[in-house]
Amino acid sequence: MKKIINSPDNVVDEMLQGFVLSNLAKLRFSKGSSKAIVKKKLEDKVGVVIGGGSGHEPMFMGYVGDGLADAVANGNVFAAPTPETILSAIKEVDCGKGVVCIFGNYSGDVLNFEMAKELAEIEDIKVENIIVRDDIASASLEEKENRRGIAGDLYMIKLIGAASQMGYSFEECIQLGEKINNNLFSVGVGFSPGTHPANGEPGFYLDEGMMEFGLGIHGEPGIEQRPITSSEDICKMLVNFLLEEIGDEKENEISMCVNGLGSTTLLELYIVAKDAANVFESNNCKMMDVMVGSFCTTQEMGGLSISALILDDEFKKLLEKKAVSSNFHKGV
Amino acid sequence: MKKIINSPDNVVDEMLQGFVLSNLAKLRFSKGSSKAIVKKKLEDKVGVVIGGGSGHEPMFMGYVGDGLADAVANGNVFAAPTPETILSAIKEVDCGKGVVCIFGNYSGDVLNFEMAKELAEIEDIKVENIIVRDDIASASLEEKENRRGIAGDLYMIKLIGAASQMGYSFEECIQLGEKINNNLFSVGVGFSPGTHPANGEPGFYLDEGMMEFGLGIHGEPGIEQRPITSSEDICKMLVNFLLEEIGDEKENEISMCVNGLGSTTLLELYIVAKDAANVFESNNCKMMDVMVGSFCTTQEMGGLSISALILDDEFKKLLEKKAVSSNFHKGV
Repeated sequence: MKKIINSPDNVVDEMLQGFVLSNLAKLRFSKGSSKAIVKKKLEDKVGVVIGGGSGHEPMFMGYVGDGLADAVANGNVFAAPTPETILSAIKEVDCGKGVVCIFGNYSGDVLNFEMAKELAEIEDIKVENIIVRDDIASASLEEKENRRGIAGDLYMIKLIGAASQMGYSFEECIQLGEKINNNLFSVGVGFSPGTHPANGEPGFYLDEGMMEFGLGIHGEPGIEQRPITSSEDICKMLVNFLLEEIGDEKENEISMCVNGLGSTTLLELYIVAKDAANVFESNNCKMMDVMVGSFCTTQEMGGLSISALILDDEFKKLLEKKAVSSNFHKGV
Repeated sequence: MKKIINSPDNVVDEMLQGFVLSNLAKLRFSKGSSKAIVKKKLEDKVGVVIGGGSGHEPMFMGYVGDGLADAVANGNVFAAPTPETILSAIKEVDCGKGVVCIFGNYSGDVLNFEMAKELAEIEDIKVENIIVRDDIASASLEEKENRRGIAGDLYMIKLIGAASQMGYSFEECIQLGEKINNNLFSVGVGFSPGTHPANGEPGFYLDEGMMEFGLGIHGEPGIEQRPITSSEDICKMLVNFLLEEIGDEKENEISMCVNGLGSTTLLELYIVAKDAANVFESNNCKMMDVMVGSFCTTQEMGGLSISALILDDEFKKLLEKKAVSSNFHKGV
C-alpha cells in the first residue's frame, strides 16, 4: 500500500509542520526542538506534557489544547520521543509548579521519559511520569505493571489536563494519575493491519475474515485469533473480558470510549457503541458517558478498542470540564 | 472486506442509535422519524436542516450542534433521505422564521428535498434548499449547475449555521448560501475503494499504485487515472486545478480544508496540507485558515480532497464563530 508522503525519512517532521500550520493560532514548535509542540498561551499551573511515537494520530499531538495537555513530545513513527525532545517540552511548560508527563507503558518511552526527568531535575524542575497501563489483554492482573497503554491515554490526558487547570497541585495530579490507572480498563481487537508509512510494511499478518483478540496498538499479538462475527458477538467478547476485571457485584457508573484503530468506520463504531453499552447495562453498569471516534490509531489498521473508566464524583467533575483539542479546528 | 455490523438491513438505524447514545445530553430523535435527529435545545432563529445518504460519517449527522445545523435527515447508505424524514426534521426546527436545508447536489437528494419543501409549504412553513456544488471536477464551469457537492458541505454548514445563530433572516441565509457556492472550490483524488457496509461490494476498481483524479464521494469516476506519486506532486495537480478556476491575478485570502475520504491517515493529510498550502502561497493566495481531518468520508475509501473558500470579511467573521460538532464529545 502506497502512502501519500514525500521522503520516508521526513514523514514526522513534515506531518508536524502541517499540524502546526493547521493550528497556527494556538500552537507553536518548542524553541528547543522541532519535534516538540507547545500551546501558545501557557497557564500558571502544573504543566502537562504528553508524548510517544508518531503513527497513532490524532494521539498524541491532537490532545494539546485548552483543558488538555500543554505540550507534546513526538517520536518517529512507532518510536519513543528522544530525551532531548521531552526535556524541551518540559522546559517550555514549567512555571515552577512541577510538570507531569503522560505516556503509554512501552520500554522505549519509559526509558526516555525517565532520562528526561533526570535531566530536568538537574535544572531544578520537578517532574513525575504518569505511565498509562489500561490494556488488560497485554498482561495479567498480577503483572499489571507490564500492561501497555492504549486508547485509555485519552482519559488520562483529559482528566489530568482538567485537574491541572482547576488548580490541582503536583502531588494531587500524581495521585489522580494513580487513581485513574486503577479504574481504567481497555481491550482491543484487530481486523486488518496498518502500513508503516516509512517502510510500507504491514504491521502483522491475519487471514481475511479473522480477527486478533487483544491486539496491541503496534500490532503486538493478542490472546488468540477468532473468526470475525457480528458487532453484538464482538461486544459480548470484549465487554465480558473487561467485566471479569471490573466485576459486576456492585453497580458501577461508567464512561465508555469506543476507539477506532484507523480504517474501521464511524458507522461500525457507533453500532459497536450501542451494542457494548447494552452488554455493560445488563451487567450492573450504568453508562454515564459514551465517546466514539478514532482517537488513537495505528495508521489505517482495521480494529477497535473499548475502554471503561469507573466513575466517581471527582472523575465526573473532571470529565465535564471543557476541553478543546487541537485536532479539530474551531470545534468543527 | 467484512464490516462489524449485525444485520445488513439495519446498519443505519443501529448506527443512529449509537450516535444518539453518544450525544445524549445534546441530541434526540425527531418525534416524527427514526432517521431524523434534532438538537435538544433549539433557538429562536432560522432553522438549519442538513441531510444526505449515510456512509459518509461524520457527514452529515456529526455537524448537528451549537453554531452548526439544528437537525439532520439521514438516508440509507449512499441513498437520499426520504421526503418524510426531511419533513420531520423541518417541522422540528421551524419556529416561524423559515428553514433552510443544506445538501449536496445529487439527483435523489434534490428530488426528495424539493418534495419535502412542497409538503412543508402546505403546512405554512417557509423552506428553501441550499444545494452545495463544490466539486469542480464533476462538471465544467459552463455546467456548474450539474456539479456535485463533496467536502465543501462542511463550509456551507459551518457558515450558514453561524449566520442563522447571529440573526440572519431567511432571505439573508439564502443569499449567503449563493455567495458561498460562488466562492467554494473542491477537487478530490481516490487511491482505493471503500466497501458498502450492507452488500460488502467495493465502490470501484483501481489498480494498485494508481489514483483516480477527480473521483466523487460515491466512487463516481473522475477525469483520469494516474500513477500515485508524492504528496508534493499530488498537491501541485490538485491545487493547480483549483487555481485554474480561482485565478491567480489578484491576491486571494483562503480557508483550506484537506479532507480524508476514510482510510487515508492524518499523518498523510497533514503532509498534504503543508504541501498544498505551499502551492497556494506561491500563487498569490494567502492561507488564513487550514482545516485537516476526515470530515466527509466514503467508508474506508483511500483518498482525499482539497477545498478552498475565498474569504471576505463576512466569511471570516462567520468562520470565527464558535461551533461545537456532535461528532466529538466534549471537545476532545
